[in-house]
Amino acid sequence: MIDIAVIGSGPAGLSAAVNGVQRNKSVVVFGEKPSASYLYAAENVDNYLGLPKVSGKELIDRFYNHAKNVGVGFREGKVYQIFSMGDHFTINFDNNFYEAKSVIITTGMNKSKTIEGEEKFLGRGVSYCATCDGMLYRGKTIAVVGETDEAENELKFLSEVCQKVYYIPTYKYKGESKGNVEVLNTKVSAVIGDETVKEIKTEKGTIECDGVFFIKKSVPYSSMIFGLETEGASIKTSKHMETNIKGLYAAGDATGKPYQISKACGEGLVAALSAVEYIDKL
Amino acid sequence: MIDIAVIGSGPAGLSAAVNGVQRNKSVVVFGEKPSASYLYAAENVDNYLGLPKVSGKELIDRFYNHAKNVGVGFREGKVYQIFSMGDHFTINFDNNFYEAKSVIITTGMNKSKTIEGEEKFLGRGVSYCATCDGMLYRGKTIAVVGETDEAENELKFLSEVCQKVYYIPTYKYKGESKGNVEVLNTKVSAVIGDETVKEIKTEKGTIECDGVFFIKKSVPYSSMIFGLETEGASIKTSKHMETNIKGLYAAGDATGKPYQISKACGEGLVAALSAVEYIDKL
Repeated sequence: MIDIAVIGSGPAGLSAAVNGVQRNKSVVVFGEKPSASYLYAAENVDNYLGLPKVSGKELIDRFYNHAKNVGVGFREGKVYQIFSMGDHFTINFDNNFYEAKSVIITTGMNKSKTIEGEEKFLGRGVSYCATCDGMLYRGKTIAVVGETDEAENELKFLSEVCQKVYYIPTYKYKGESKGNVEVLNTKVSAVIGDETVKEIKTEKGTIECDGVFFIKKSVPYSSMIFGLETEGASIKTSKHMETNIKGLYAAGDATGKPYQISKACGEGLVAALSAVEYIDKL
Repeated sequence: MIDIAVIGSGPAGLSAAVNGVQRNKSVVVFGEKPSASYLYAAENVDNYLGLPKVSGKELIDRFYNHAKNVGVGFREGKVYQIFSMGDHFTINFDNNFYEAKSVIITTGMNKSKTIEGEEKFLGRGVSYCATCDGMLYRGKTIAVVGETDEAENELKFLSEVCQKVYYIPTYKYKGESKGNVEVLNTKVSAVIGDETVKEIKTEKGTIECDGVFFIKKSVPYSSMIFGLETEGASIKTSKHMETNIKGLYAAGDATGKPYQISKACGEGLVAALSAVEYIDKL
């Protein structure tokens, strides 16, 4: 069992991780390569106190090396879901399951918008994870809305399982309709149904389907962990970075403005110390 | 008129200052030499992300140089009082008066304890500033409680103005009773009076006096600015580091635990950006 699972490998996550290890806790960071951060492309950062005029790359490299050198563990991939089990959490990480005493979410800004009906039908026809829910749609008709080319792996898997798949990419997709996959160049504006999903509304009319998979760059907080309280697009936290779920903390851009490195690092530290205090009381 | 006056020269103050300047605001830091920070003596700091295994001295030097190089102004001395004037603030800084559109308080932990009656009689016999209030006690009998040798300057001034001065040092004082100054080696436990101060209670009995000056290392928040809301010993702030007074912000150890550099820097940044937003709306 991991003491502290940090979800996200940006400045907030790395600061949380370093501070968790400094307090003698085992810490694993689950997320993309730190170099995947949008900060990596920043030419010049001049407001992280003590390190003037550095590039985003240099800053991220320094942060990552600091964390690695103190003994933080890293797992590269995507977290689909976190389950609160009372006194610990179970994390579905690319369909491998990890257990942790506490979790700190530092997955950055929630950039993806949800559409009408998306949250309403979550778990009743709407899914964010093909590998989690794909088998529920064996032999059925589904739509897949892909935000990045990473969605193509999930498309492949779903096309093997389902009878018919409508693929609606929101990025520049080079593939074409083939076999049971029909590519639609349109936009989805709503998910419609009664008990479960019946159809989706697009710019080019409605399409009947039994389910719709939104394959997003990052899983929305609302579906990552059940019952997590948000404030607009951000995770709601106390001053000590506690969320409404015991043992679960959040830090950095995920908690709202300002979207700045130093704010992220500070919150990461506070979240880690709160998690340490929580673990020590367990 | 200064855009942002930062009170305190620790990590929170320097981070606020750097970020204020980066947003094109004029910023002046009022406080001690950064090297006076207790952090300066730390042998090894390993949890400020990106700068592993540095001494407190190196960190403070880096922070200070960063701030100086981007154009932050520095004034060395002590802030006695801040007056809210509606759309700006007036700052009594060693009896020089500065005006600022906004103020960020980053004066660290409030280490000095108050004694019984001290807050009750503030402005009615209790004072923290000899140069501000000394003349009110011309020809009268007063007590001076000195926390550091800096109090000796104020003692000298008060002995010239008042008829009789009891000096009660709480540090190792080398001087002796002389002229109208009587040195008492005792502890003050309470301030007593009715409308105004009548006497102080010490370990060696009560002493009649018309006023008592507490010359502390830092002025307590409660007397630094009238009506500032606190939470225990800390300044109460919102998530955006706003205090209950418009245009006045706080950051770092002054706002409470954890007492950590990264938390201080993050809060300093947030306070600065909130101040910038406030100024831009004026």
